[in-house]
Amino acid sequence: MSYNKTASITAETINPKVKIFDYEPCGEIARHAERLEQEMEKSPGSRPFPEITYCNLGNPQALGQRPITFFREVLSLCDNPALLRRDETRMLFSPCAINRARKIIESMPGRNSGAYTNSQGIRSLREAVASGIAARDGFPSRPEDIFLTDGASSAINLSMQILIRSQEDGVLCPLPEYPLYSASIILHGGTMVPYNLSEDGDWGLEIFEVKRCLEEARIAGLTVRAMVIINPGNPTGQVLSVTNQEEIVEFCRKEGLVMLADEVYQDNVYVEDRKFHSFKKVARSLGYDENDISIVSFHSVSMGFSGECGRRGGYMEICGFGDDVMDEIRKVASVTLCPNIGGQILTSLAMDPPKLGDGCFENFMAEKEDIRLSLAKRAKTLASAFSSLEGMTCNRVEGAIYAFPRIHLPAAAIKAAKAEGMSPDLFYACRLLDATGIAVVPGSGFHQVSGRNKATGTWHIRCTILPGEDKIKVMIPRLKEFHESFMNEFRDRS
Amino acid sequence: MSYNKTASITAETINPKVKIFDYEPCGEIARHAERLEQEMEKSPGSRPFPEITYCNLGNPQALGQRPITFFREVLSLCDNPALLRRDETRMLFSPCAINRARKIIESMPGRNSGAYTNSQGIRSLREAVASGIAARDGFPSRPEDIFLTDGASSAINLSMQILIRSQEDGVLCPLPEYPLYSASIILHGGTMVPYNLSEDGDWGLEIFEVKRCLEEARIAGLTVRAMVIINPGNPTGQVLSVTNQEEIVEFCRKEGLVMLADEVYQDNVYVEDRKFHSFKKVARSLGYDENDISIVSFHSVSMGFSGECGRRGGYMEICGFGDDVMDEIRKVASVTLCPNIGGQILTSLAMDPPKLGDGCFENFMAEKEDIRLSLAKRAKTLASAFSSLEGMTCNRVEGAIYAFPRIHLPAAAIKAAKAEGMSPDLFYACRLLDATGIAVVPGSGFHQVSGRNKATGTWHIRCTILPGEDKIKVMIPRLKEFHESFMNEFRDRS
Repeated sequence: MSYNKTASITAETINPKVKIFDYEPCGEIARHAERLEQEMEKSPGSRPFPEITYCNLGNPQALGQRPITFFREVLSLCDNPALLRRDETRMLFSPCAINRARKIIESMPGRNSGAYTNSQGIRSLREAVASGIAARDGFPSRPEDIFLTDGASSAINLSMQILIRSQEDGVLCPLPEYPLYSASIILHGGTMVPYNLSEDGDWGLEIFEVKRCLEEARIAGLTVRAMVIINPGNPTGQVLSVTNQEEIVEFCRKEGLVMLADEVYQDNVYVEDRKFHSFKKVARSLGYDENDISIVSFHSVSMGFSGECGRRGGYMEICGFGDDVMDEIRKVASVTLCPNIGGQILTSLAMDPPKLGDGCFENFMAEKEDIRLSLAKRAKTLASAFSSLEGMTCNRVEGAIYAFPRIHLPAAAIKAAKAEGMSPDLFYACRLLDATGIAVVPGSGFHQVSGRNKATGTWHIRCTILPGEDKIKVMIPRLKEFHESFMNEFRDRS
Repeated sequence: MSYNKTASITAETINPKVKIFDYEPCGEIARHAERLEQEMEKSPGSRPFPEITYCNLGNPQALGQRPITFFREVLSLCDNPALLRRDETRMLFSPCAINRARKIIESMPGRNSGAYTNSQGIRSLREAVASGIAARDGFPSRPEDIFLTDGASSAINLSMQILIRSQEDGVLCPLPEYPLYSASIILHGGTMVPYNLSEDGDWGLEIFEVKRCLEEARIAGLTVRAMVIINPGNPTGQVLSVTNQEEIVEFCRKEGLVMLADEVYQDNVYVEDRKFHSFKKVARSLGYDENDISIVSFHSVSMGFSGECGRRGGYMEICGFGDDVMDEIRKVASVTLCPNIGGQILTSLAMDPPKLGDGCFENFMAEKEDIRLSLAKRAKTLASAFSSLEGMTCNRVEGAIYAFPRIHLPAAAIKAAKAEGMSPDLFYACRLLDATGIAVVPGSGFHQVSGRNKATGTWHIRCTILPGEDKIKVMIPRLKEFHESFMNEFRDRS
């Protein structure tokens, strides 16, 4: 028997699950921005803006956020433990960082930082994370329940792998959604059960809406296994109220749903009247222990004040799964051997940072507060800039790192988009990019437009608040100018 | 409707694909060793050995291998780029490392080392890897074809995800196998099609055997999509001859199979009469280009002279897939955003190390050669120690980091194992661990015993050659003493 080359692998013979999901963060706008950048490198001055402003990605350090000094010093020392034996090291590193690095190296297999670790992560680092969680929540946390992971995304994938058996298994996810969820559910062969967040209610989560979606899914024959809640929200920027969180806990408990709590923006809260509370804390405060409800909490070092996306550090805390299930999760985790050590170290540092009395505490707190205050300022500035534009409304950015304004597009713009075979929000985003170099993600990239979605026909853009204050100052007039000329071009003339 | 807690997730309702695979590296022996270690911590002196010798895992730095100085200096500087602006840094770091770190930082998004990178990895680092491949093979390599990954295991998982559509899709894998392959194939819903390596032929790969397995699988209705080849072999330690590799290339080309070439031990070759040749090089030397054959080559920084397992650095080079398939692979890679930056940097350093003329070249080469020569010595010592034991035969360890001796177990030992509900090789490995503290993996952990396997009824252990020369000196007499007493206990008395 003889085969030709094309028999081996083609776009027709690839796993179809891979083909059906779309993933906007690497979609049309990202590719278009890259093309523009290359064009501008070749012919500088060819565009009416000096550079691309990448507001399409939540990538703090690419947009100028500085890493926390203490974190980087510790990482640097752990990479090169020989430094710990040299006197000159004291000239370059804080005593605080030297002490912490020494402690970490002592707890590593082979007293080096390059060996495979336990598949859940190094025990001492999980202890640091658990103690950080306990301090945050006021309820105990156990290192056995912590899995250090390569960022939150690998933890989310692992959870889907454990939960999803077939297409008949559903997972409730918010709309607009962070598209990792639909991608991961599709790749693992399950069915996404979307529920709508309420734009009119500050992107809050309405239990009757979730209940409606759950019941519809059950009538359609699905076994709904879990509910994803993103708090603070991406792309929506809301911070849930405790009352709302309590309702969600009661609902999941009653319906036997595993709570998948995406809490990666827990350090990004900007308003006085909202605070971050973990779902585990809310459940425990209601008196529910791990026999009552199963909760997986995802966190990472990518956002917050650390902003260490590329380091791929994170954890999940799994509560309320039986020991036999935990053993299976450990087995799956062991297939990829262990999370990367740099990410493990960073995660321990973020959850167990310098304390009052430590030499570097003040410097650490100053760096952290600088970032938080500046983000809070930028959140406010951008949201009010968007709101000031004709036909735009923007909810308050209470947390996370995005503004998600709604655009009321004129009929002529919608028609023009259709003529170019684009969704209207993508059409707007492309025009914005071409005119100003500002890259944003159209709301449809978060599946804001879906057949099940009552908000069908509403259009949004997601714009990160991460560019520095200077850059935002330059960005806003460009944005305004573009928007005015866009509206002038397409304004309804009825 | 009300559900009780147990409805949410239990060992009965977990994804069954997760339950059916076994993964010996975290199996019985690993757990038993951990229990012993805890026991010995609590009551020192409770066992007739001072410590556990972890020969069950290929974990170089946990067993004392020192990291390459240049690698760690560069990593350390990239973590803390502020050092590049300080004069004191010259006292602690080589100029070579300072230059390289500066070059790397310049090419990073935001000139920092904490941002998300391109999902394939930073372009300049992929260029370094491609130039290293080209220098190794004498054939061109393109950075577009390189995916930097979190170690080889995530690359292997990604490949299976792309290739496997359903249980009707098969992947040819060697037996004994590295159990990541069966785990990954099962988790992605496909079918493993095992082929036997020939122990009598120095663990070589016999094409007629692979052909037999392929034909059987096709008769059974499977579409066989790919063939995994591990060279140098794990757990078997063979290095394939070029002639053998040429046969394999011809076979895969003719049968339209994607070659999945696990080449992670390419720097671990210990015998004069064998050299490592990549499958891509062999294919190109035969005159086949990417229109003729599809090859994915996996490599990592975990083994070889770097031994940086915990850093999770690696790459895959994908040749002969169409552009549309490559786009789909990029999309799947983007779901987990990007590989960790530390791993990316290390991978670039391993593939593009200091060159003749660089200040640190001599030191780098000395460290590298020390490791290689010592491993070669240990490979020889351990293989001949095993071969000297009654009823044991051990093929030459030509490459990789394991000896895989066969044990001809007496009937009484097999009977005793059965009585304890264990496979005979696990029984032997448990006895060895209890008596000496030496942990090895039983051959059955590599699915050496399988219904399809003509070698059914042969028993092996896999023992890494990684413990330092001093430790091996102490280990061998303990091993001999144990083995003699084991054989005395069970020797056939016919």
